[in-house]
Amino acid sequence: MMRTLRWASFIVIDTEHIMSSIPSSRGQRIAIDPLDKASRIEGFWQQRVIAEMNDYQFKVARVEGDFIWHSHADTDETFIVLEGELRIDFRDGAMHLRAGEIGVVPKGVEHKPYAAGEVKILLIEPRGVVNTGATHSERTAPNDIWI
Amino acid sequence: MMRTLRWASFIVIDTEHIMSSIPSSRGQRIAIDPLDKASRIEGFWQQRVIAEMNDYQFKVARVEGDFIWHSHADTDETFIVLEGELRIDFRDGAMHLRAGEIGVVPKGVEHKPYAAGEVKILLIEPRGVVNTGATHSERTAPNDIWI
Repeated sequence: MMRTLRWASFIVIDTEHIMSSIPSSRGQRIAIDPLDKASRIEGFWQQRVIAEMNDYQFKVARVEGDFIWHSHADTDETFIVLEGELRIDFRDGAMHLRAGEIGVVPKGVEHKPYAAGEVKILLIEPRGVVNTGATHSERTAPNDIWI
Repeated sequence: MMRTLRWASFIVIDTEHIMSSIPSSRGQRIAIDPLDKASRIEGFWQQRVIAEMNDYQFKVARVEGDFIWHSHADTDETFIVLEGELRIDFRDGAMHLRAGEIGVVPKGVEHKPYAAGEVKILLIEPRGVVNTGATHSERTAPNDIWI
């Protein structure tokens, strides 16, 4: 009986660790499908890293509804819409991004993403950027988790 | 007669200058359609800048046929295929990118893009990177021209 239990303990798989570990390739030298990667994420506003270029990361997310107002003091941030339509509000206007379009938010500029329905996005920004900037909220997501 | 000529001289438009000047927005805070931008380029392997994020540039190009072997000593380089199918050869293999897919070439790694038919691509790399790396060739394209 004890022996059976010992063997059983060997097949416990730490899936969270597998999901969050950085691949040795850093997502380089291989074709990566960001839409497919985004589709695998459970839940909205959870960004997942898919590749790195120098000290920048490519991240995907599924988003729906209202995000929060925030800004990034030290960096611009790029959004590429993979599927759906994303609106990014500024204090003095808005940017409407359809699938395939790119929008760059300048550093220090307050913005609030909004998606009427589900939208899949690709984000590009330096490693270590927090999704809600200096504004801590329930929307603040864990960083540097790969998918 | 002289008067007519003088007036005429005012309507000469320097289209090359207009095309190559950097917009005050640097392509930020506006929706940009990279596929549409790429479609407007005449000729292959001519990269055109469409937006900037910090000191990185988003560039589009129409490519067909064989490029040359080259590498970039100081930076990774990202390819996103907008339309068509791109193969990037390495000395020890290849990466096949279909529309919507991302491929990052690590810095210092020799590579040669190849497109059997026309392919439209989005490139992401630091401002100032020469398309043929340290290898000067007839494929070496002018840099920092916006569209």
